[in-house]
Formats: sequence, C-alpha cells, structure tokens
Amino acid sequence: MAAALALAARGRGRTAPNPNVGCVIVRQGHVIGRGWTQPGGRPHAEAMALAEAGDAAKGATVYVTLEPCAHPSPRGPACADLLVGAGPARVVAALTDPDPRTAGQGFARLRAAGIDVVEGVLADEARRSIMGFLTRQALGRPYVTLKLALSLDGMIARADGESRWITGAAARAHTHLERSRHEAILVGRGTWEADQPSLDVRLAGLEARSPRRIVLSASRQEAETIASPSEISALEGVDHLFVEGGAQTASAFLAAGLVDRLLLYRAPILIGAGKPALGDIGLAALADAHGRWTLVDSRMLGIDRLEVYERGQPHQEKLLDFSARMGR
Amino acid sequence: MAAALALAARGRGRTAPNPNVGCVIVRQGHVIGRGWTQPGGRPHAEAMALAEAGDAAKGATVYVTLEPCAHPSPRGPACADLLVGAGPARVVAALTDPDPRTAGQGFARLRAAGIDVVEGVLADEARRSIMGFLTRQALGRPYVTLKLALSLDGMIARADGESRWITGAAARAHTHLERSRHEAILVGRGTWEADQPSLDVRLAGLEARSPRRIVLSASRQEAETIASPSEISALEGVDHLFVEGGAQTASAFLAAGLVDRLLLYRAPILIGAGKPALGDIGLAALADAHGRWTLVDSRMLGIDRLEVYERGQPHQEKLLDFSARMGR
Repeated sequence: MAAALALAARGRGRTAPNPNVGCVIVRQGHVIGRGWTQPGGRPHAEAMALAEAGDAAKGATVYVTLEPCAHPSPRGPACADLLVGAGPARVVAALTDPDPRTAGQGFARLRAAGIDVVEGVLADEARRSIMGFLTRQALGRPYVTLKLALSLDGMIARADGESRWITGAAARAHTHLERSRHEAILVGRGTWEADQPSLDVRLAGLEARSPRRIVLSASRQEAETIASPSEISALEGVDHLFVEGGAQTASAFLAAGLVDRLLLYRAPILIGAGKPALGDIGLAALADAHGRWTLVDSRMLGIDRLEVYERGQPHQEKLLDFSARMGR
Repeated sequence: MAAALALAARGRGRTAPNPNVGCVIVRQGHVIGRGWTQPGGRPHAEAMALAEAGDAAKGATVYVTLEPCAHPSPRGPACADLLVGAGPARVVAALTDPDPRTAGQGFARLRAAGIDVVEGVLADEARRSIMGFLTRQALGRPYVTLKLALSLDGMIARADGESRWITGAAARAHTHLERSRHEAILVGRGTWEADQPSLDVRLAGLEARSPRRIVLSASRQEAETIASPSEISALEGVDHLFVEGGAQTASAFLAAGLVDRLLLYRAPILIGAGKPALGDIGLAALADAHGRWTLVDSRMLGIDRLEVYERGQPHQEKLLDFSARMGR
C-alpha cells in the first residue's frame, strides 16, 4: 500500500476532477502491474496496472489507495468491472470512495464476484494523499497551500523590495517541486507584474508540469483573474491551489480562512525593517492565534529550514472524516 | 573531561571576572573530587576538587577544563602550586589559559614537578564553555545573547502591544534557565517600564540566580542605565549579557555588531500586522545578510521551536582562536 501511495503522489496536481490514485498488483511476491491516475483523470490507476499485468492478474492481489469506481462513465469502464473481469484473488484498499455514485458499491461488486476485499489499510495516509479531491468534495473548493519564503525575523523583502535571494538554491528547487504538484499557482497583482515570467516549474524533466497561473486582483489582468479568495470555488479543474504571494494576497487568504497548509522556507538571515510576510489577517486577540496550525514536517534544505503546517484539529478532522462519513 | 565541562557550566554567569572552570579528580576509576569555579570567581575549580579529594589526590589523575593558574593572587594560592603540593600523577587539561600571567606557565610548573601533563582534550567544547571570559579577554566586552520570542511571521506582539503569550510554558521556562546563566539582563526603556517586576529567574531553586538588570535608555532610569550598546564594555563583572528586548533595543545591538548568539523561540502561530521583532539593523543589501549566522542548536519546547544561532565563521574564529594564539 505504501508503494501504491507513492504512485498516487505522481498524479497530484494533474488529475482533477478525479482523485489521484495509485495501484500495485502483486503475484507470488512479484510486482506485476503498477498504475496511477493519468493527467486529466484517465486512465484510472487500476486500468493502467491491469493493462500491465495482463492475464497474470488472475489470482493476484491488487493494492489500491481508493475504492475502485463502480459507476459507468463515457470516458471508460468502471474499475470494479475491470477487476471482476481480471479475476484477482484479493483487493486491498485504503479508502472508501466518497463519491456518492460509488460509496461502497465498488467493494460490494468485487465481493459479489467472489473476490476477497480488505478495507482501511493505511487509510489516514491515503486520505492525506487526496486532500485536494476530499476538500473539493467536502468544501467545494481547492485545497490551498500558502508558501512563504522569509528571514528569521519574518521579512520577505528589504524595505526597497529587494527579495532575491532570501532562501538558497535547494529551497527554491523545492518550491518548484511543490508547484509541479498543484493544478494552479495564484499570486497577487504586484507579484504578477514583478515575477510573471518566473512563475513556472524550472526543474529538469518537469518543465511541462508548470501549473496554470491565476492572479488575485480587483481589476482584470492579462491572465486568469479572480477578485477575491472566495472565488477559488469556481476554479474548475483546480483541486490543489498554490498561493505564492505577496503579503497582501497571503493575508487575504488567511483572513478568509482559506489556507489549509503552510509551507515556510526560512533563511538564517536577519533583515530588520523590511516587508513583513503578512499584513492584517483579522486576528482579534493572541489567544485566537493558538491551536490553528500543526507542524507536520520540518527539514533542512541546505542552510534553510522548511516547515510544513496544516490547519489544526477541528478543520483537519472535518476533511479527514469526510470520506469515512460519506462512504459508509 | 566531559564531566568536568558539565561542572564548568554550573558557574556560567556567576564567576566574572574569572572564567567558569570545571575539575574532576579520578583515582583507580573512581571520582574522588569534583569542583567548579564558585560565585565571584573563588575558590577555583581545582581548589574545590582537591579539598574534596584530600590525601587521595596523590598519584591520581586530574581533569580540568582550563590550565591551572600560575600567578599569585591576594584571593588565594595559585592552582598550579596547589596541584604540585597534592602530587597527582597526571593532569589532563582542555585549554591553555589566555591570561598572560599564566599562558603556559601553569603547565610548565606541573611538568617541572614531575607531573605528566596532557593538553588539548575537548578543546573546542572547552572554548565554547568560556565564551564569556574569552570575549571579555579578546574584545573587552561581554558575550552577548539576544533573545527573541516570536510568531511564525516574525511578530513579537499584536499591533496594540498584546504579547502574552506568544510562546508556551516550556519556552518561557527555558528563557528563565538562560537568564540564570548570565550575569546581567538588559532591556530597553519601554520593556523596563512594562515588565520590570518580571525580569528575574522564576524557576524553583534558582530564584537566587536572578541576574543584575540593566536598562538601555537615553535618559537615566531608576536602575543601572547605559545610553548605547557600546557602553557594555564598561559593565564590570558582566561576561555574559542577555538582551531581552524590545525591538528597538534588539536592533540597536544588531546594528552595532554586538550580538554573538541568537536565541529564537518561535510559536506555531500567525499574527499578521503586529509589532515586528526588529527595526532597522543597518542592512545595505540582502547579500550582506547572508553568512552571518550559523545554526548550532534546534529543538522543540512543547509546540514551540527553539533555534540557537551563533555569529558566522570569521567572528567565531576570532574568538575561538584567541586562547590558542595567546597561550602558545
């Protein structure tokens, strides 16, 4: 299942409106098929893995990060039907599909065909892997990551605007990797005007994964434009949104409660009087600031530190419980 | 030697103008004497350890973090003479004493008396343990630690001044422990007026180690006052200075190049428009900000993170090489 989750991650940021799923087929200790949801959502992970396994899938074990779909689609056959046709002995799955058109019916169809079904393996990890899909299903909007690159004292530029470079090459490369995992990057008008040409993925082999670019601006720009953070709900085909700045845009998303994940790249420098990372985020008292963010990852990238925070318990639980509630 | 260094740490912040030294005497695998420089600088570590060991010191091995003093003092006998009198078989030392009145003569006197002398054991760690003394000797001023307690976005208070609390109980207790290791705390006038009663050590058993309190202010306060960071050189009996804020004071010390060590306590909260940790620190370009600070410790204190930085290579080397240059 861990291998299937690693495959699932390959699709992240390119499979909307479908979830990014991974699938591994094992027979007598050997991997005979691997698949992950392809760009645009098709083929599904199971279809790709079954195509690789061919007849050898008969009697094998299929590991898949999400319940195989049971509903018909003009874009291809239901995975539950494909599996029944291939005849594996066992299907091990992480999650029930929250899509009401499947929601347990995929498992039911497999069992009816005499296939042994195991559910709930690495379910938490699997939920985390499809937060974009789950957030879209539960809240009707993309999963939003806010990225900030700042100094030890929280500045994102000197007072005159100089911001190149605060973080080093490793941190900047990591940002490009993160961009490649999002359907869209969003920046404010000021950042758009300053940095437009550089808002892409500049990692060898991943250039084609440069995401769609969206501008937050009261006036329409020569690019896809939204006037307020709340309009992200209407961004079709975007399940993961990467908000890159500047301070006004970051603050607008935070004030609206529309940030699910923070990526902080912090350089070991002091800037002093400069441009702070954030403006007003609508905080009424210090007590309200606590308990909102949970550290989920921390690592050094060269001499810079990356910290990843997710929204605190109540918010996360709402999302993480969604698939369980919907699917059972 | 590691045990002797741990004893040496007990004296930190209370032995000026003497260095905080540690000493362990071992005979046939058993510790028979332990000592560390006592408050005010006397008795010395060796005298204390020898007093505990008594006649058993004859033929034993003495571990000491700094070369035993060789110069006479009205406050007590020279440790080199005490050791010669006690007759250990061997003295293992970390550092040569940079004080020109000893500077190798302590070792010479031991060798002349037939005692086996080993030098340079854990020398780097020993230098770090007496940075206050070395800084005073090399630069004629205390070793300065700047403490900042801030949010992820670098704020030390809300815009209205609310700053209680940003960090949690564990981080605040750690600050009190740090205070106990400094001869003096320094704050700006604003912090003095707001927090005067709380600038002490409130840890059970360490209350008596509350340091001297000094105010940075253009006008004389009802407390020891200095008008500019450069006046710290004149603070007699202060080899370790703990600068606690606020932003103006922190910036003044940074702008003057008078911060050797940064203690950053960072809480997992966002504040947005508030009071930044620093004001103008005289940075002319981003490039000048890089390479100044080296991360030497990082740990979680509850949900807050402590990061400790020391001044970068050129500055450190100047201090760390001092004892080597002086003593050889």
